[in-house]
Amino acid sequence: MVVDALSEPNSYRNLCHEHSDGAPMPSAEALRDIVELVRSIIFPGYYGKSSINTATLKYHIGVGVERLYSLLTEQILAGLSFADYCDTAAYAAYNQQTVQTELNRMARDRAGRFIEQLPEIRRVLATDVVAAYNGDPAAKSFGEIISCYPIIKELTIYRMAHELWLLDVPLLPRMLTEMAHSETGIDIHPGATIGEYFTIDHGTGVVIGETCIIGRNVKLYQGVTLGAKSFPLDAEGNPIKGIPRHPVLEDDVIVYSNASILGRITIGRGATIGGNIWVTQDVPAGASITQKR
Amino acid sequence: MVVDALSEPNSYRNLCHEHSDGAPMPSAEALRDIVELVRSIIFPGYYGKSSINTATLKYHIGVGVERLYSLLTEQILAGLSFADYCDTAAYAAYNQQTVQTELNRMARDRAGRFIEQLPEIRRVLATDVVAAYNGDPAAKSFGEIISCYPIIKELTIYRMAHELWLLDVPLLPRMLTEMAHSETGIDIHPGATIGEYFTIDHGTGVVIGETCIIGRNVKLYQGVTLGAKSFPLDAEGNPIKGIPRHPVLEDDVIVYSNASILGRITIGRGATIGGNIWVTQDVPAGASITQKR
Amino acid sequence: MVVDALSEPNSYRNLCHEHSDGAPMPSAEALRDIVELVRSIIFPGYYGKSSINTATLKYHIGVGVERLYSLLTEQILAGLSFADYCDTAAYAAYNQQTVQTELNRMARDRAGRFIEQLPEIRRVLATDVVAAYNGDPAAKSFGEIISCYPIIKELTIYRMAHELWLLDVPLLPRMLTEMAHSETGIDIHPGATIGEYFTIDHGTGVVIGETCIIGRNVKLYQGVTLGAKSFPLDAEGNPIKGIPRHPVLEDDVIVYSNASILGRITIGRGATIGGNIWVTQDVPAGASITQKR
Amino acid sequence: MVVDALSEPNSYRNLCHEHSDGAPMPSAEALRDIVELVRSIIFPGYYGKSSINTATLKYHIGVGVERLYSLLTEQILAGLSFADYCDTAAYAAYNQQTVQTELNRMARDRAGRFIEQLPEIRRVLATDVVAAYNGDPAAKSFGEIISCYPIIKELTIYRMAHELWLLDVPLLPRMLTEMAHSETGIDIHPGATIGEYFTIDHGTGVVIGETCIIGRNVKLYQGVTLGAKSFPLDAEGNPIKGIPRHPVLEDDVIVYSNASILGRITIGRGATIGGNIWVTQDVPAGASITQKR
Amino acid sequence: MVVDALSEPNSYRNLCHEHSDGAPMPSAEALRDIVELVRSIIFPGYYGKSSINTATLKYHIGVGVERLYSLLTEQILAGLSFADYCDTAAYAAYNQQTVQTELNRMARDRAGRFIEQLPEIRRVLATDVVAAYNGDPAAKSFGEIISCYPIIKELTIYRMAHELWLLDVPLLPRMLTEMAHSETGIDIHPGATIGEYFTIDHGTGVVIGETCIIGRNVKLYQGVTLGAKSFPLDAEGNPIKGIPRHPVLEDDVIVYSNASILGRITIGRGATIGGNIWVTQDVPAGASITQKR
Amino acid sequence: MVVDALSEPNSYRNLCHEHSDGAPMPSAEALRDIVELVRSIIFPGYYGKSSINTATLKYHIGVGVERLYSLLTEQILAGLSFADYCDTAAYAAYNQQTVQTELNRMARDRAGRFIEQLPEIRRVLATDVVAAYNGDPAAKSFGEIISCYPIIKELTIYRMAHELWLLDVPLLPRMLTEMAHSETGIDIHPGATIGEYFTIDHGTGVVIGETCIIGRNVKLYQGVTLGAKSFPLDAEGNPIKGIPRHPVLEDDVIVYSNASILGRITIGRGATIGGNIWVTQDVPAGASITQKR
Repeated sequence: MVVDALSEPNSYRNLCHEHSDGAPMPSAEALRDIVELVRSIIFPGYYGKSSINTATLKYHIGVGVERLYSLLTEQILAGLSFADYCDTAAYAAYNQQTVQTELNRMARDRAGRFIEQLPEIRRVLATDVVAAYNGDPAAKSFGEIISCYPIIKELTIYRMAHELWLLDVPLLPRMLTEMAHSETGIDIHPGATIGEYFTIDHGTGVVIGETCIIGRNVKLYQGVTLGAKSFPLDAEGNPIKGIPRHPVLEDDVIVYSNASILGRITIGRGATIGGNIWVTQDVPAGASITQKR
Repeated sequence: MVVDALSEPNSYRNLCHEHSDGAPMPSAEALRDIVELVRSIIFPGYYGKSSINTATLKYHIGVGVERLYSLLTEQILAGLSFADYCDTAAYAAYNQQTVQTELNRMARDRAGRFIEQLPEIRRVLATDVVAAYNGDPAAKSFGEIISCYPIIKELTIYRMAHELWLLDVPLLPRMLTEMAHSETGIDIHPGATIGEYFTIDHGTGVVIGETCIIGRNVKLYQGVTLGAKSFPLDAEGNPIKGIPRHPVLEDDVIVYSNASILGRITIGRGATIGGNIWVTQDVPAGASITQKR
Repeated sequence: MVVDALSEPNSYRNLCHEHSDGAPMPSAEALRDIVELVRSIIFPGYYGKSSINTATLKYHIGVGVERLYSLLTEQILAGLSFADYCDTAAYAAYNQQTVQTELNRMARDRAGRFIEQLPEIRRVLATDVVAAYNGDPAAKSFGEIISCYPIIKELTIYRMAHELWLLDVPLLPRMLTEMAHSETGIDIHPGATIGEYFTIDHGTGVVIGETCIIGRNVKLYQGVTLGAKSFPLDAEGNPIKGIPRHPVLEDDVIVYSNASILGRITIGRGATIGGNIWVTQDVPAGASITQKR
Repeated sequence: MVVDALSEPNSYRNLCHEHSDGAPMPSAEALRDIVELVRSIIFPGYYGKSSINTATLKYHIGVGVERLYSLLTEQILAGLSFADYCDTAAYAAYNQQTVQTELNRMARDRAGRFIEQLPEIRRVLATDVVAAYNGDPAAKSFGEIISCYPIIKELTIYRMAHELWLLDVPLLPRMLTEMAHSETGIDIHPGATIGEYFTIDHGTGVVIGETCIIGRNVKLYQGVTLGAKSFPLDAEGNPIKGIPRHPVLEDDVIVYSNASILGRITIGRGATIGGNIWVTQDVPAGASITQKR
Repeated sequence: MVVDALSEPNSYRNLCHEHSDGAPMPSAEALRDIVELVRSIIFPGYYGKSSINTATLKYHIGVGVERLYSLLTEQILAGLSFADYCDTAAYAAYNQQTVQTELNRMARDRAGRFIEQLPEIRRVLATDVVAAYNGDPAAKSFGEIISCYPIIKELTIYRMAHELWLLDVPLLPRMLTEMAHSETGIDIHPGATIGEYFTIDHGTGVVIGETCIIGRNVKLYQGVTLGAKSFPLDAEGNPIKGIPRHPVLEDDVIVYSNASILGRITIGRGATIGGNIWVTQDVPAGASITQKR
Repeated sequence: MVVDALSEPNSYRNLCHEHSDGAPMPSAEALRDIVELVRSIIFPGYYGKSSINTATLKYHIGVGVERLYSLLTEQILAGLSFADYCDTAAYAAYNQQTVQTELNRMARDRAGRFIEQLPEIRRVLATDVVAAYNGDPAAKSFGEIISCYPIIKELTIYRMAHELWLLDVPLLPRMLTEMAHSETGIDIHPGATIGEYFTIDHGTGVVIGETCIIGRNVKLYQGVTLGAKSFPLDAEGNPIKGIPRHPVLEDDVIVYSNASILGRITIGRGATIGGNIWVTQDVPAGASITQKR
């Protein structure tokens, strides 16, 4: 019978996640709540259900930050337990009780440090709003950018996820950026480094790889890939993880739609890359390259 | 402390939307309900939870139209208040009471005029269903097109949003098309003008800019960009808003996947544009251009 | 008045779906529940709300399979009734009572046969997880692949939908793959045939047509099209349905981002297709072709 | 282990309801929806979420009646299947297929006949509203009675349930009146017969038994019992079902709080029964009896 | 047909509430939210979903008060519009625009004045908690009283409703106390006046009429009625509204279960009324009366 | 300002529950889920959303028991933390870390012991179903009793709550019985001891006190009080907690509606107590007492 077949341990080896006590999987639903909370704190009045005015804004932010701390602690704990579960060796020396206590402490600590970064995240997102506004003649106001533009939805999530990445939180950064990928069609790896005043127009199909480094005031169009060209294999033929393999874009670079920039190359300050082309070598500062016709 | 930092007015300048009394932000959730209602009115029996038959169809449409009028009035009012808030100069001569009364009147008026357009919107969408059916050998029935095909989901929203755009409703048209963009990966600006019997196959990555003009019986494939080539800056270096800067596609044009057509150029009647190419100059009627290999 | 205009039968001809008694439209919401159930059965502990351990896993799978059978029977019945409604000729010889009884029997039978395929679907998806892990140096664990990667979300749905397609279930396979298309930007037709160890990196914009045949261990990148080049028309100028018109990819083929492979051509075993190019002719086994610059 | 003990058939004999295919239990949730629908049809504008005006009232009633028919058919079918399940002998001569078809026909028939009674139910409830208004000096308007008074909530449900009882629908009438009992503390058996212009003040603790017959213009206060005094047992010592055993109250009777009237006695026209007393014998018309002090 | 019969204006005369523009019925659901909000403000940490500590309590109360003001204004406006609708004469001199503006102003004003009473409501409820604790040997802690005891749920709603009654808000006070009646079986009219340190044990079946006056430190048991004995009719035979017709209970009175105290009589300070008796005459201070056996 | 007044610590002394880390209040919503789960385990097929048959019943019970264990552990922990918070002295010797670990262990232990009692709870409830059926000539089947009768809803909760009471779980038993009290109007204290084959007809207004002891085969009617007559005060004038002060009813006793039996008296085996009377002294076995008229 099918239930027996599906319950046969060999059939679900590697596909099943057993939960240790009190350690559920990170929850996509909780992460969605977290994103909503961060949006309501960063852009008060644009997100969140309540009406806001300057007299009561502090109450709303106070409640939001408390709830964010609590939700985030829970999810970071789930992420840490998940990683712990996947990599039991790392904790082999400790007994379960000690591990649980230590993971709890780590989760609270990282949630607290994330929250301390919120003012800086807001400051940088404010520059991204300016970049999106300046880059689109169809934009009518900052308010329209904040409430409609996919790039702001994407960057709010990416900049959150990148902070969590820097805090060495497992799984959550990736789950967050995949949520943004699904919503906007823009796939930015949480490990990528991206400067201020960044924008992407339209965005669908953009890919930005894990080891990319992007300067200030860079603009991309839809369909652009900042990817790896190939990746070295180790002795057993498996890809070696963690090697810098994606491009560096210096300040003031523009890349037009559907261009693919591949490998650890550098696009120099102020360069312009035309649409639908394939770039696998360094481009000097100020250069402009386009598709041959 | 972080709550103080985040409540510091300088830190949220331009990022916060204070609500005047009784004037909330337009709500993404309400817009989703509005789209569902319009779908259930345009395509009775395909959308909406109730079962339908010819004897009771009029009751359903009667209830749907009443609810649509009420929801839409509310959202248009929110949009008008939002625009009012962003552009306080426009209403400087009036006192707040007068403004509120006037905005209410405008919202009811525009909602009413939108609803009068529903029969015409349905008529045009019926031609789009035919175009999608004829354009896809995999399609089995009109019913399958209406219930599954992303292009019909996209065009229902775009054609609604375009009417609201023509009625000068702020913010809502853009929020609507970004909802469709997120769902289908097709980004049509609500300002674009698109004729009957229009279709896009697969659709992901398509971009159609604000000032595009598209004739009858045009077909696009996934990844096509109808974009701006560049845009003139004003004296302060800001992009000048509202200039015609996107292509004109005459009747019966076909554009294959990932082609980019840029700038205020004209693709003549019956022309065919091949895939993965970059077009920045007029193409004569009946011509066929393809990628060089 | 607008309600009258919208209730005028001529205005909704072909756009309205009348429900026969007890035969609602297939429901997108129910299909979402079905996908969640299948995910929780295939990848226990990663999906589904409950916590799992080996002692209770069988109870969860038992309950899940029973609920899946019930939901699926209902949706298959809706799909069969829908097709019946669209194609009344097929059942003309029978009275309504007989038809309803027969459709019920067919729905239960097909739901049962689908469920018998679940162990095989899980076996093949396990190979896809391995392929995704091996293909991405940024991947940290199988668990990360299963819980985050869009390709696994896509393939779980595609492989379900393909089974339903093989069981000749109307409408549902297409509704399912369009749900996946909306979530991931990857558009795989449920009729396509795809071997084990298949993966797509990033994925946005990929299109795989109805009559594609893909071997084992094939890898695609974002923006790849496996499409039709053109399609023959019948005497009335309508496209002829069901003709093989999409490519065959043999084992071990790699296709880089934004390449378009069109028409019933064969890409030979182990061939590599470079990014952003347009392929309309056979490529021999082991060959490597790239964009001219 | 506890799961084994609880799954042991002897342990759940008589406590378990096995569902035959397609025949779920009647659903408390669905009955709540049905009550809400009936309230919105009987008292348009007071119940139901939509706003109403005379121009659109007919659309709302049309949609409400259609949905009511569909929900009610489903629940009546569940009730019939439940009774069938409890009393398998009754259908022993038929095969399962025939039974299912017949139950379906019966369910549709009874739902239709119930709906035909709605105008009469509304007419009688209108007299109850008048009685409640006249009986309470604290009442300010008919609107207040309709929207707040527990007796109207109770009687709307009782009068529905009584119609279903007369239509011989199993289980549902009793489930409905117990819902009302829980909400208002008034326990009226659906089999009781109650005339026009009936009211109960406050109501908590009132009990009206299955075979009561109540005339026009009767008023009760809280805590009144119209109960059985004792009931004859059959040869095996089980109570004999269905014997008239509750009081008859003729027109214009008033019963004050906490009085208990027990057995098949008659309280004559216009009699007044004082509070906190115990009545087990006929009371002549016009009499007034009170507690001895 | 039944839809026609039910849409016939004569059939719904007095039973239908037409909504004027922007003036829905008061909503039971919104009132439930309002009660939850008030509970979370009065008893922080016992009600409301968030966790609380002294550092963040002020944020929670700030957000709660703002939301309460907004919800309450909306519901008071609905109540005022409802009363206006029922009593059109009162506003005959004004045009619709003026009325709407004035009702808005009144709603905001009364919501604001209600909120100013919250500290006093909390102060009095704190005395009720003490009375419930002292009166029940089974009570273990104040926390148990606040989170479980029906009398505290009842009094929180009654004391809110009474404030709204004093502010002359139509309909809402009565809807609120009927919500409490349904939840606890205790029916306190919002017009009754009740002093500090009040408690009712168990409570089911208690009735306290509109013109009751209850002193400090009074205790009732379940089933007690403080009702009217009879009420004078006017010339047309209708009950005269608003006459004092319920008892006065002075300080320190105890009334045991199921006693009925009826009419405008006075139960003197410190008197004790035994269970199951019927009192229709003044009882002197300090007296103790019981049922004759 | 009101927010300041409400945030003033003196104003919420004793009314506020500060949550220690990870220790929320017991949740009424979670308790409702727990009751639903227990109902679906005790009466499979009557409660719970799924359809059931003998082949799959064990899966459902397995999943139900696992979920019950998890929910119950959480709520018991919340109850223990609450009691701990109220009575800090009890844990003064331990540090916070140790306390938390110990409370977790206690919660898991008690949840496990509760679950072991489920087969016995089911066995006793089966006798209560028989008693309700035999006691009501209007009852048509065991199925009707299980799905409609308030006494079974009440006793399922009371018998659960009593087990938790015996396991010394704080707060939860009382919250559970107050939920049942609100639903049925029957107020049974979780500390009462009640034998097999117990039933109450109609039930509204029944009160059964903390120290009652009720034998086998006892039947009560609506409005019966089994209460305390008075309670001794300690030196400070506070009621002394925990003294036996409620009646003992031996086997086979019947008590008719609205009778009040008060104090630690004994009603002997087989005695009958008439309605609306006040009993404060022992009643010998087999006696029958009624109201004097």
